[in-house]
Amino acid sequence: MRVLAGEPVWPPPIWLMRQAGRYLPEYRAVRAGASDFIALCTTPDLATEVTLQPIRRFGFDAAILFSDILILPWALGYELAFKEAEGPVLPQLATAADVEALEPERLLPSVAPVLETVRHVRAALPAATALIGFAGAPFTVACYMIEGGGSADFARTRKLAYAEPALMHRLIDRLTDTAIAYLGAQIEAGADIVMLFDSWAGVLSTRLFRDHVIDPTRRIAAAIHTRYASVPVIGFPRLAGLSMASYATGTGVDCVGMDTSVDPVLAATLVGPRVALQGNLDPMALVAGGAAMERETEAILVALRGRPHVFNLGHGILPQTSPEHVGALVDLVRGA
Amino acid sequence: MRVLAGEPVWPPPIWLMRQAGRYLPEYRAVRAGASDFIALCTTPDLATEVTLQPIRRFGFDAAILFSDILILPWALGYELAFKEAEGPVLPQLATAADVEALEPERLLPSVAPVLETVRHVRAALPAATALIGFAGAPFTVACYMIEGGGSADFARTRKLAYAEPALMHRLIDRLTDTAIAYLGAQIEAGADIVMLFDSWAGVLSTRLFRDHVIDPTRRIAAAIHTRYASVPVIGFPRLAGLSMASYATGTGVDCVGMDTSVDPVLAATLVGPRVALQGNLDPMALVAGGAAMERETEAILVALRGRPHVFNLGHGILPQTSPEHVGALVDLVRGA
Repeated sequence: MRVLAGEPVWPPPIWLMRQAGRYLPEYRAVRAGASDFIALCTTPDLATEVTLQPIRRFGFDAAILFSDILILPWALGYELAFKEAEGPVLPQLATAADVEALEPERLLPSVAPVLETVRHVRAALPAATALIGFAGAPFTVACYMIEGGGSADFARTRKLAYAEPALMHRLIDRLTDTAIAYLGAQIEAGADIVMLFDSWAGVLSTRLFRDHVIDPTRRIAAAIHTRYASVPVIGFPRLAGLSMASYATGTGVDCVGMDTSVDPVLAATLVGPRVALQGNLDPMALVAGGAAMERETEAILVALRGRPHVFNLGHGILPQTSPEHVGALVDLVRGA
Repeated sequence: MRVLAGEPVWPPPIWLMRQAGRYLPEYRAVRAGASDFIALCTTPDLATEVTLQPIRRFGFDAAILFSDILILPWALGYELAFKEAEGPVLPQLATAADVEALEPERLLPSVAPVLETVRHVRAALPAATALIGFAGAPFTVACYMIEGGGSADFARTRKLAYAEPALMHRLIDRLTDTAIAYLGAQIEAGADIVMLFDSWAGVLSTRLFRDHVIDPTRRIAAAIHTRYASVPVIGFPRLAGLSMASYATGTGVDCVGMDTSVDPVLAATLVGPRVALQGNLDPMALVAGGAAMERETEAILVALRGRPHVFNLGHGILPQTSPEHVGALVDLVRGA
C-alpha cells in the first residue's frame, strides 16, 4: 500500500500474477474437485482456499482474488465456457443488438459468490497482506466477446473498431460502467487494491489505444478514486509498448504493470517518480531458475531501486514452474 | 534513399510490407503456376514478376525482393516446408550438434536463384524506384528453428535462451555471419537497401533483447556499412515496445520500422532526428478503408512531418485487402 501511494520501499513487495494456479499441487487438488472452471470461481469456499494457498506457502505481500477476467461478461448474461484445449469460448458479438442484450442489472446478483469470496479472503488474510480485486479492462473483455475467444491478431475486433466506431464505443462504454460497479462492489467487500487487466492493449494503433484503453481506464480510475480515496488502482496495459507512457500519464492509475518486454530503466524515466511500476520478470526465467533467474531479477531490482516498485512477473506464472523456484525468487527479492 | 540518409522529404515515400502478395489477383495467378512457395521464391522469372507487380500497379517508391525470411536457414541445409494451413514447418533445433550441422558453405550456391531475381528486378525497375533486399534477423530465424514453426509465446526459444545461453549465443552468431554474407550478396546483385525483419523481437526481456537482437543487428549493420558505405540498413524490431529506443541508438541502423502499436509521436522523440522511421498504418485500417483509413493515415503523417519518414504499414498487408484501398492510400499519402 505504501508503494502504491508513491513511496519507494526496499526491498520491494512481491506477488506474482496467477500465483494461485496449476503450478501448485494444492491448487490442482482443489481444481479436481470442482465441476468446471466457472464453478471454481463462483464457489466461495473453493475460491477462498485457492486464493490463500500461495500466501500460506510463500508469504507473498498481496493476495489476488481467484477469478477470471471473463467473469464480467458472464455476469452480464453473456454465454461463457472454458474448454480444456481451446480456452474460453463465447458467442461472437457483432451487432448493436448484441450490446443492448447485455444485462447490467444481473451483474451484482451474479457476482454475489465472488464478493463473498472477497469477504472470506480478507477475513482470513494477515493484516499486512493486501487483497487485490480485479476486473478485465473494457478493451480486453471486448476482444474476447467480439472474437468469441482468444485470437492471434484480434482481426475481428480491430475491423469492428475501424468500420463501426459507434458500436465499438457503445460496447466499451457499457463495459466501463460495469467494471466500475464490479470493482466498487469488490472494494465494499474488502479489496484493498483493484487491478485492471488489459491483456490485449498492445494490438491497437495509437489512436484506438487512446479511445479504447486510455479513455475507459481514466474513467474507471477516476470513479474509484472519487468513491474510495484510499484505494489504489493498478493498470496492466500488456504489450502497449511506447504507449505505456501515455497510459501512465493519461489514465490516473497509481501503478502501471510492465509486461516482460518493457525495459524497466526506460519505463522509470517515462512514467515519472510518483506512479508505481509493477513487474516484470519473464515467467520463463522463473521456469529456468538458477543463474538466469537471478541475473534477470537483479537487473529489474537495480533498475527500479529508489522508486515505487512492486516486484512481479511480466505475465502469468507458467503451469510448468517449479514451486521451489518461486520460493527461491521470494528469498532473492527479500534478501536483495 | 534521401530519407534513409536522414533527410526529411515531403510527401514521404511509400511502400508496403508484403506488397507483392495474395491481395493482388495477378499475384494469385502466378502463385497458382508454382509447385510450392519455395519454388516461387527460387524461380527467378516468377519471383521477378511478382516483385514487379505492385510497382506496375501502384508505382510504389520501393520494390522489395519477393522471398521469405526462412530462405536463410533453408539455404544452410535446414529442412523447410510451407504447409497450407499451418505455415512454415521445420525441425526443432535443440542441441549444439544441430547448430554445427548448419552448412554456411551451402549459402551462396543455394541462394543463386534469389540473387538472379535481384539482378532481374533491378534491371527492370525504374531508376527512381529503390530495390530493398532483406533477411530474417538472427533472433527471429532462431525462433522458427527452435520452435519448428510459429508459436504463440516462443516458450522453447525463451527457455533455451535462459537455460543454455552458450548454445543460444552460438546459434545467433552463426545466423549473424550468414545474414551478413547473404545481405552482402544481395547488394552485389543490385539491392539498394537492405532490411532485417525481427518479427519476434518483442518476446524478449530487456537483457535478452540486448544480447540477441541489438548486438547481432549492430554487427550486421556495421559489416554492411563498412563494405557498402552507401547502402542503408532498415531494422524492424517488431513489438519491441520501449526497447525500440535502445534498438535505434544501439544498432546503428539507418531506419527503424515501427509496428502498429508504436506511437509515432513518442518514437520520433526517442530515436532522434537522424534515424529515419518507417511505418506504421494498421493493416486492418487499410482493409476497412474510407474514413478510418484516412484518420489513421493523417495522424501518422502529421506526427512525422519534418523528420525522415518512409510511409508503410505496421505489419504485412492482409490478403483480404482491396487493391482499390491500396490505390486510395497511395493517393492520400502523395496528395498529403
